[in-house]
Amino acid sequence: MKLYEKVAHAIAERIEQSFYQAGEKLPSIRALSLAHEVSISTAQEAYRLLEDQGWAESRPKSGFYVINRQKAPQQLPDLSRPTQRPIEVSQWEEVLSLLSASTTPNLVQLSRAIPDLNAPTLKPLTRILSDLNKNAHGSMLSYEALRGSDGLRLQVARLMVDSGCRLHPDDIIITAGCQEALSSSLRAVTKPGDVVAVDSPSFYGSMQAIKAHGLKVLEIPTHPETGVSIEALELALEQWPIKAIQITPTCNNPLGYTMPVEHKKRLLALTARYDIPIIEDDIYGDLSYTSPRPPTIKSFDTEGRVLLCSSFSKTLAPGFRIGWVAPGRYGNQVMHMKYVVTASTPTITQLGIAEFIAQGGYERHIRKVRAQYHQSRDVMIGWVEKYFPQGTKISYPQGGFLLWVELPDDIDTITLNERTMTKGVSIAPGVLFSASGKYRNCMRLNFTDKSSEKNENAIKLIASTIHEMVSELKQQPHMITI
Amino acid sequence: MKLYEKVAHAIAERIEQSFYQAGEKLPSIRALSLAHEVSISTAQEAYRLLEDQGWAESRPKSGFYVINRQKAPQQLPDLSRPTQRPIEVSQWEEVLSLLSASTTPNLVQLSRAIPDLNAPTLKPLTRILSDLNKNAHGSMLSYEALRGSDGLRLQVARLMVDSGCRLHPDDIIITAGCQEALSSSLRAVTKPGDVVAVDSPSFYGSMQAIKAHGLKVLEIPTHPETGVSIEALELALEQWPIKAIQITPTCNNPLGYTMPVEHKKRLLALTARYDIPIIEDDIYGDLSYTSPRPPTIKSFDTEGRVLLCSSFSKTLAPGFRIGWVAPGRYGNQVMHMKYVVTASTPTITQLGIAEFIAQGGYERHIRKVRAQYHQSRDVMIGWVEKYFPQGTKISYPQGGFLLWVELPDDIDTITLNERTMTKGVSIAPGVLFSASGKYRNCMRLNFTDKSSEKNENAIKLIASTIHEMVSELKQQPHMITI
Ligand SMILES: Cc1ncc(COP(=O)(O)O)c(C=O)c1O
Ligand SMILES: Cc1ncc(COP(=O)(O)O)c(C=O)c1O
Repeated sequence: MKLYEKVAHAIAERIEQSFYQAGEKLPSIRALSLAHEVSISTAQEAYRLLEDQGWAESRPKSGFYVINRQKAPQQLPDLSRPTQRPIEVSQWEEVLSLLSASTTPNLVQLSRAIPDLNAPTLKPLTRILSDLNKNAHGSMLSYEALRGSDGLRLQVARLMVDSGCRLHPDDIIITAGCQEALSSSLRAVTKPGDVVAVDSPSFYGSMQAIKAHGLKVLEIPTHPETGVSIEALELALEQWPIKAIQITPTCNNPLGYTMPVEHKKRLLALTARYDIPIIEDDIYGDLSYTSPRPPTIKSFDTEGRVLLCSSFSKTLAPGFRIGWVAPGRYGNQVMHMKYVVTASTPTITQLGIAEFIAQGGYERHIRKVRAQYHQSRDVMIGWVEKYFPQGTKISYPQGGFLLWVELPDDIDTITLNERTMTKGVSIAPGVLFSASGKYRNCMRLNFTDKSSEKNENAIKLIASTIHEMVSELKQQPHMITI
Repeated sequence: MKLYEKVAHAIAERIEQSFYQAGEKLPSIRALSLAHEVSISTAQEAYRLLEDQGWAESRPKSGFYVINRQKAPQQLPDLSRPTQRPIEVSQWEEVLSLLSASTTPNLVQLSRAIPDLNAPTLKPLTRILSDLNKNAHGSMLSYEALRGSDGLRLQVARLMVDSGCRLHPDDIIITAGCQEALSSSLRAVTKPGDVVAVDSPSFYGSMQAIKAHGLKVLEIPTHPETGVSIEALELALEQWPIKAIQITPTCNNPLGYTMPVEHKKRLLALTARYDIPIIEDDIYGDLSYTSPRPPTIKSFDTEGRVLLCSSFSKTLAPGFRIGWVAPGRYGNQVMHMKYVVTASTPTITQLGIAEFIAQGGYERHIRKVRAQYHQSRDVMIGWVEKYFPQGTKISYPQGGFLLWVELPDDIDTITLNERTMTKGVSIAPGVLFSASGKYRNCMRLNFTDKSSEKNENAIKLIASTIHEMVSELKQQPHMITI
């Protein structure tokens, strides 16, 4: 890191930790240069970087101010109110039908969490893989080490430094996507019948894993800007025999929030009191719109109590099926699970991705798509505000490429999806993200695609279908008010 | 199938079913032509094929005779005598140390079940994969359908015709290797605490899956030529609440036998009485030295009670991590398990293998390596007979590339392996294949490599280490007789 980057990083961290509040005036260039013992020009460069990264803005003749980045211009969804006791996960049929729909050709798929797979910055990776495959023989075609390739684990350990983690490559196990990381972690720290607490709404894949492993889920009320409610979690921990916590605190799927650093630390401290492991899903973390990206909970963990799960499925492409877990003190159990479930992870793909990262291709790609998604977020929110009925609530993602939309109460998004599907557009109905069929009036939309006419038309089509449903409901004896 | 192939197939089946016994005279060409209503030249061609395939031999001026293929020239191991009650699987430490050793560079690895990865017949496959990767974008980089690619499932369904199975592509689910197929199948048909019966000695990967899923194992006495004892299994079924049977009846790992067709049918009938699912591991089936390859138990199953598991790890290469399961009536459960454990299977690899099979590359490769392994088997057995101490018992594999060797009682193969490892040769100690530390004096050896000096030297080195251990034992007060 260059000197001015270090200074900028320090300021960014203080903003993130709310030491400097949104709208507040930042130290003058002179004060900064004195405080950090750097030259005036380094201080200037630091501010230029902070501006570039969207942390600060300069006001003519006045100085630099903290950008009001958290505040959503639109109306946000409310704090979620899931079922307040441990329950069994349902919704498998709904998930299955979402997964099947996504192989329908020519669909405008706003339903699935798939990144931009046509980015030119992916080309170097496919070229590396092409070359590696060409003359592959011997050990390149054999089982890779159970833990994963040395080279890839080294690169992953390096990437994780950005999120504040200092891990040895041997602290990492490569997996068949984040799904295997989550599934193995869950099984490593629980036994059938146990209760697992989750944020809510929550990624359906981890909830289905909870179901398949015979566990019960306790959904914790979650705020669309700050994540799982620490207060609600504390009450839950007092009341129920929770054995693990599974959350996605950075660039959450589906809500898009990033939990503030202070909340992450409080969560870690709270669970320390009960000695409960946290399964932290960081799959979208590197797609945070802020740079440096936010730290993980894992980065504050000194007890090996956090199992960090991630993959390249959202940052590069899901078809490779390469993920990882940093299992902390649960390494032995996770390794056994990894062995019996998939034995090892594809060899050449690991070598290829490691080389791509080592060549700087990963960083270049991330910089590019992160900016692209950041832009499309605002375009997408604009369309939804413009075309959807009044009273629609919209999330304000801090990273990734997924938008959460809450419609008037009586609109069932399963029906909505059935109707839009016949016209070639798919959405992800909200019920998928609940263990028990809540969020019926919500949906998740993918906004990876750069603002194109095709996408605006898809949003218009969804909007007109909603309007149609609203007027049908109004004509029914039991009228609704929206 | 051509007409003469059909005729040859019919004769081969009758030999396999012991309708024609080893050494017996087969019908004359004229009789064959009459019986099958084919021309004399077709009958001649059929016999030529049977000779090629090693079923028949012609004796000058006399006619065709059934080759004595089953009888091993060497002394075979005895019927195994595992623990006679359900137990928990141990040996994870030993498996882990085997797996770690196999990444040691420059080792002559006779320890692991890895096929020949330098076969020139694999080249077309790596070339296809190279081309597919080169310009991969969009859906080729995305999640493949949960069930697996349409193209690959079609090709797998076609391959399975050779083992007597007529399945629809939708009866097949693609998995991350055979290990995921086995693991998902086990979980689909059991719950923690259940008892699973297995052949013994048995592949450590499936036993570790039994352990990880909280199941108990009941090891059934197994014959080195005919497989699991049906009588012993019948007694076990009467006595214990067995919930599933997991076996590798064709080209077994580690014993190499193929269960005779009649035994397969009896096993199916027996388990029908108890309505118990059979998890049939067919991973080495296509590497049978006989052609057509032996039928699977699945091929006789009319109730959807057999879950057939396999992969390309032994026939092509394990580094791809592509396998499949034909789960019969347990499709929903297996699919749910597949989703929560790995979500989907690498996309491009599936497309590449499908294309390779469609182009005939799979068949060409199998023909080639099958003949190679068949030859190396006999060379390897020759070496073991020549160099190992008298009293050594050796399996007589009917396919695949794995040899099971039983040493004098007091030789501990864990110690043996520790010693040979220091000299650059690894073996698979017998205890790995037992749930409870039996088969201490046994080992498994890989014989993929074409009879080379390197391999003969490795066998000599193992032999001299054994002789060393024997004489050390003789010098101890408690002498052994061998
Ligand atoms: C939050 C979250 N975790 C995990 C996964 C699964 O990731 P992978 O495809 O790497 O298994 C997803 C995919 O949608 C996800 O959104
Ligand atoms: C009998 C048997 N079944 C399954 C497996 C695992 O196969 P895969 O590598 O396809 O997961 C092996 C590998 O050694 C095996 O020998």
